[in-house]
Order: sequence, then C-alpha cells, then structure tokens
Amino acid sequence: MADEQVQHDEQQEDAAAEVVEDDRLLRLAADFENYKKRVARERAEYVTFANERLIKELLPVLDDLERALQAADEHEEAKLEEGVELVHRALASLLERHGVKEISTEGKFDPHVHEALLSQPSEAEEGSVIDVVQKGYTIGDRVVRPARVIVSE
Amino acid sequence: MADEQVQHDEQQEDAAAEVVEDDRLLRLAADFENYKKRVARERAEYVTFANERLIKELLPVLDDLERALQAADEHEEAKLEEGVELVHRALASLLERHGVKEISTEGKFDPHVHEALLSQPSEAEEGSVIDVVQKGYTIGDRVVRPARVIVSE
Repeated sequence: MADEQVQHDEQQEDAAAEVVEDDRLLRLAADFENYKKRVARERAEYVTFANERLIKELLPVLDDLERALQAADEHEEAKLEEGVELVHRALASLLERHGVKEISTEGKFDPHVHEALLSQPSEAEEGSVIDVVQKGYTIGDRVVRPARVIVSE
Repeated sequence: MADEQVQHDEQQEDAAAEVVEDDRLLRLAADFENYKKRVARERAEYVTFANERLIKELLPVLDDLERALQAADEHEEAKLEEGVELVHRALASLLERHGVKEISTEGKFDPHVHEALLSQPSEAEEGSVIDVVQKGYTIGDRVVRPARVIVSE
C-alpha cells in the first residue's frame, strides 16, 4: 500500500511537471509568435521613419529651389545664381551628413569603385583614369554609384 | 517482478518524454534568442537601406545642380535657368514618388496642418488663410512640416 502510494505520488508529480513544462513551452511559443508579428509591423515603420527624416531635411532644399526659380522669373540673374549655389551647398551637406562620400578618381582605375565607359590613347600611364563622365559616391563601405570614367589605354 | 518491470518502463517513458519536452523548450528558447539577435542586426540595416535608396535617387539631382552651376560659371543664363527648372522638377517628382504631398492652404485655417505665424485684418473671412510664408507637406496621414500661414482676423 505504501509502495503504491509512493508510485502514485511520483506519477502525479511527473504529470504536474509535464503540465508546467507544457505551459512554459506554450507560453514561450506564444511570446515568439507575438514578437514576430511586432517585428513585421515595426519593419515597415522603420523604413517610413528613416525616409521621413531624410525627406524633412530635403524640404528646405525644395524651398530654396523655388525661391531661385522665382528670382529667375523676375530676371534677377545674380540672385538666381546665388540661390543655385545655396541649394547645391545644402544638398551636398545633407548627403555628407548621411555618410555619402565622393569616390576619388585620382590615379589608377579601380574596378571596385569605377566603371570604365571607354579607354582612349593618352599620355597618361596605362590604366589610369583620364576623365570623369559622372561622379561616383559611397556610403560607408558600400558603393551607391560607381564613378563613370574614361581610362588611358 | 512483472509489476516492477512495468513501473520501471513507465518511469523510463516519463523520463524520455521529459527529455523530449526539455529539448523542445531549449530549442525554442534558442530559436527565439537567435531571432531577436537577427532582428536587432537587420533593424540597423533597414534604416541604412531605406536611406540608401532615397540617396541614390538624389544623386542625379546633385548632378543636374552641378551642371547648372557650371552653366552659371560660363555665364549661360538661359541654360542656368533651364537647369534649375530641371532640378526642381526632379526633386519634386522624387518627393511625390515617396508619398510627399503639399498641404492645401485654401480656405479655413486648420490647426492640424497649418501653423499660424500671425493674424492680420483683411477683407477675407475671419479665420481664413490669407498668405503662405512656407509651404507644408504630408506623407500619408502624417504632417512632415505644417504650412506656415498668415490668418485673417
């Protein structure tokens, strides 16, 4: 009788332990599911917010451009030119703040950051960049746009 | 003996079931941890990538601006003006593609999207917008920048 009692208690304990374990498993699975859903929701928001900050910084550039155009309408050439310089400085410094850097085109052609549009005979050393058709830019160690160049044959 | 064997088998089964359960719990917990780490890593990347796409689209605007400045340097006024118009159209359409919309300033002052800089006596209806000092913009239903306006007293 005592033996049976012990066995019965052990079985009950095992069953209780299993229920606790099951409960932990179910709760963890539910937490995981909820986390995944929240992440998916936030993911879309991150992109929107990141863009929004940049777009907010772009609005003054648009303002300056519109003022420059107004100066052009009123045939105020000096003011127009000044305005365009202002817009250029504003946009360049905005890009710089966001980690954008111009790719150097001094010296040798570098296939990692340059794109050769054509090669031409020249007095420069073979394989060196002799002209830049379009400037290139990086953000950190990523090439956003390679520099399009002409290379010495 | 047979009874003991049954009891022994049951205990072994219970123990085995517990091991399986423990294993599932541990694996789920590990999956959850890994998922959290990956999400944190990706979060930073999302912002970078989102910005990078927008920045990539801004580079041609910068190119056009530089060409306009070159025209200014060479005193080609018509080309400068044309260039500025091009830049303006490019930037405006970029913002439009990203869901940016100009806030209407027709009619009544709306505190949700307008910011009153001052109020002035005028012939217009009381509380209506009579002048726009700075244009305002929305993205979706969010105000990126309120329109700064002058309101009729």
